[in-house]
Amino acid sequence: MTTQRTMIGDLSNHKGTTVTINGWVSVRRDQGKMVFFDFRDNSGYVQGVVLPNSPAMETAKLSNTEYVVSVTGTVNQRPEKNVQADKQNGDIELEVLSMEIISTNQDLPFTFDAEINLDTLLDYRPYTLRREREKNIFKTQFVILNAFREYLNSQNFTEFQAPRIVGGDAEGGAGVFKLEYLYNQPAYLSTSPQLYKQMMAGVYERVYTTGPQFRAEKHATSRHLNEMTMLDFEMAFINDHTDVMNMIQNTLKHMVHSVGQKLEKELDYFKIELPKTPDTFPVMKLREVQELIKAETGKDIIGEPDLEPEDERWLCEYAAEKLNSDFVFVTHYPVSKRPFYTMEDMADAGMTKSFDLLFRGVEIVSGSQRVHDYDMLIEKIQSKGLDPDKFEFYLMAFKYGIPPHGGIGMGLERLTQKFLGIENVKEATLFPRDINRIDQRLSQ
Amino acid sequence: MTTQRTMIGDLSNHKGTTVTINGWVSVRRDQGKMVFFDFRDNSGYVQGVVLPNSPAMETAKLSNTEYVVSVTGTVNQRPEKNVQADKQNGDIELEVLSMEIISTNQDLPFTFDAEINLDTLLDYRPYTLRREREKNIFKTQFVILNAFREYLNSQNFTEFQAPRIVGGDAEGGAGVFKLEYLYNQPAYLSTSPQLYKQMMAGVYERVYTTGPQFRAEKHATSRHLNEMTMLDFEMAFINDHTDVMNMIQNTLKHMVHSVGQKLEKELDYFKIELPKTPDTFPVMKLREVQELIKAETGKDIIGEPDLEPEDERWLCEYAAEKLNSDFVFVTHYPVSKRPFYTMEDMADAGMTKSFDLLFRGVEIVSGSQRVHDYDMLIEKIQSKGLDPDKFEFYLMAFKYGIPPHGGIGMGLERLTQKFLGIENVKEATLFPRDINRIDQRLSQ
Repeated sequence: MTTQRTMIGDLSNHKGTTVTINGWVSVRRDQGKMVFFDFRDNSGYVQGVVLPNSPAMETAKLSNTEYVVSVTGTVNQRPEKNVQADKQNGDIELEVLSMEIISTNQDLPFTFDAEINLDTLLDYRPYTLRREREKNIFKTQFVILNAFREYLNSQNFTEFQAPRIVGGDAEGGAGVFKLEYLYNQPAYLSTSPQLYKQMMAGVYERVYTTGPQFRAEKHATSRHLNEMTMLDFEMAFINDHTDVMNMIQNTLKHMVHSVGQKLEKELDYFKIELPKTPDTFPVMKLREVQELIKAETGKDIIGEPDLEPEDERWLCEYAAEKLNSDFVFVTHYPVSKRPFYTMEDMADAGMTKSFDLLFRGVEIVSGSQRVHDYDMLIEKIQSKGLDPDKFEFYLMAFKYGIPPHGGIGMGLERLTQKFLGIENVKEATLFPRDINRIDQRLSQ
Repeated sequence: MTTQRTMIGDLSNHKGTTVTINGWVSVRRDQGKMVFFDFRDNSGYVQGVVLPNSPAMETAKLSNTEYVVSVTGTVNQRPEKNVQADKQNGDIELEVLSMEIISTNQDLPFTFDAEINLDTLLDYRPYTLRREREKNIFKTQFVILNAFREYLNSQNFTEFQAPRIVGGDAEGGAGVFKLEYLYNQPAYLSTSPQLYKQMMAGVYERVYTTGPQFRAEKHATSRHLNEMTMLDFEMAFINDHTDVMNMIQNTLKHMVHSVGQKLEKELDYFKIELPKTPDTFPVMKLREVQELIKAETGKDIIGEPDLEPEDERWLCEYAAEKLNSDFVFVTHYPVSKRPFYTMEDMADAGMTKSFDLLFRGVEIVSGSQRVHDYDMLIEKIQSKGLDPDKFEFYLMAFKYGIPPHGGIGMGLERLTQKFLGIENVKEATLFPRDINRIDQRLSQ
């Protein structure tokens, strides 16, 4: 591999010349006198052909699918009738002059085009991730995450690292993984960076943090994970929750724009349109949504404290059809359904300055203005039956003066799933942890 | 706060006009007839003055240090004799016309300029993080991390999310936190994304991942943490470890450049120079370092499998003085001292294609070419007394064909510490977890 490498994605700029590519044998078709290949590297695919009497023939015969190879060949224009216009490098073919096997392999469990179920997909993750579909999913995830950071950096946010080992299950015991810390001290895995990002809003005003969060819940759905990647921001000196809504709306618009710019090929692969983003996303209060559902469908859920998944799906379809938006905000959830740090809306007593943002049928963002007054916060903690003493560290941020602030959290895997229209969030998770599996299936 | 806000860092562009700032009272000096303030927001500091008979006087008298305020005032040029040229906004003063208290506070534990020890610094973290020193440290950390991503993105790397809950303590039991997973299944917290980034190098060729990693070690030093932020990359189709060394060298040069561009003020604050980076960082084999030490100092450590901290410090001083570099590579550590996945150098039997990168006295990067051959890898696992069956999932990446590859890992906190010349790595960690503390001190 000391020869200069050409990436497969650049081959069309080298027609008529001899180049060396490194990559995998994606497909091998041995036709006796000739051997055809699809070679793959991280930039794409190209067809190769080993002609009769080629000095590469012996190696071509020895090689197999998923072998890693270095191939020197001439980039030939294909005859007009063989051109596949809709395919990458569909107008060229690499005539293989020499071929070196860099890495061999054992018998493959199945070919990349095999129909496999979710368990098999995950059982063989180090292998199945190499499929075009899986590579497209996690490339999309990378672009989404980058766009999130890019936009917030442009808005003077500062990124910080939230700790994952926490000393208490302060927000209430359910759904928290317990840990043996040093000297047999109990500790827990964080379920959210919430308390830390509020403290940090007291330092840098505008902050964000990304990374793993953990929930010890025994879900068996297509929406839940026990370890997920959360994208969180928090911003100070806001008037109310609508400033936060504007910021996440503009962040998502940038993410959509970025996906549209960089991932045309990937969207095509999934046969899915870029999300519809009007200038301003539609906003409705929870109560207004309930009235709309009653008026439009007859279903009476007025007064319920939350929306059911089917109501969220209905609202998203309505917004897409009638309001030309794949995103819709629902605001003003009742105090009883929101965490203690949520600010109540005194103009709509019992309701909060909170919101969910729904996207293609599910909630992807949850946010609110937070309580910033120390005494009010202690009251709120107590009103949820929690013990303020357990929040002593967090409360310091409030005890010593913090501005009005608010923020959001969203899950990267669910966002990826919905951008691409994938059925199960586990397919949009590299190495999902769930009730059945940590890489390999758990023994029960 | 509906008035248009001007950031304090922009005030010098508004001389002679009336503006509104939002921020904290950093210092308050009540001189009876007049009250002087230092106001602070995320963009910096400015002096404010409340003149006798100002309508803001009553609020000025009520306000106190760390109150959050909104202040409307006129940006006045200071008289020549009062100009402090070396200070931000040293040539202006805000004449306060009106002042609103947004958020009050309780008695402060100490002022920002108080001399405090490490325990106090951490006991009051949500408060002490607001000090200029601490804000500078974590702003630097943010710039360093961003520059790491920026450079690798420009080199066609793909970011991925490594899981933190892992099914086995495969690399050997010491130093791993144990977890109660669902249904009382045992699980562990990852100590490194090593195995996952190798799998991912088989997918995207060049990958990186950042985020928390965990070590259950009872250290009480200025260098160790129980939860740290690791920056890791892995790259395929390399010739050997020198390709990896080039990549991390160039990444660090970009990081240094970025810090130099963006953090002049912060470097000044810490009275520290930008790291010295020659075009090519010096490289020595471990054995050559040992010979150098003997020749220069008389100390005979020839044949030892590793360097002691004091040897690393000596080498760094030598490199800075004689080779004009704050970075120095040491290569070819013996097989016995490196993990099973490290490639042996057949041209220097018993030694590995591995390296440490030392920076200002300590190792900040560890890297190597990895073993990519399936059978050789199984042998290596066994030769370390480990059980290949426990690596079944990881081994799939090799079983099905993977190119030659290598990579590095480095700790963000230690890097921040050394960039700024800070004594203890815990000062460069937002919320350090150690043998004594998870936010609050552990009861013993």
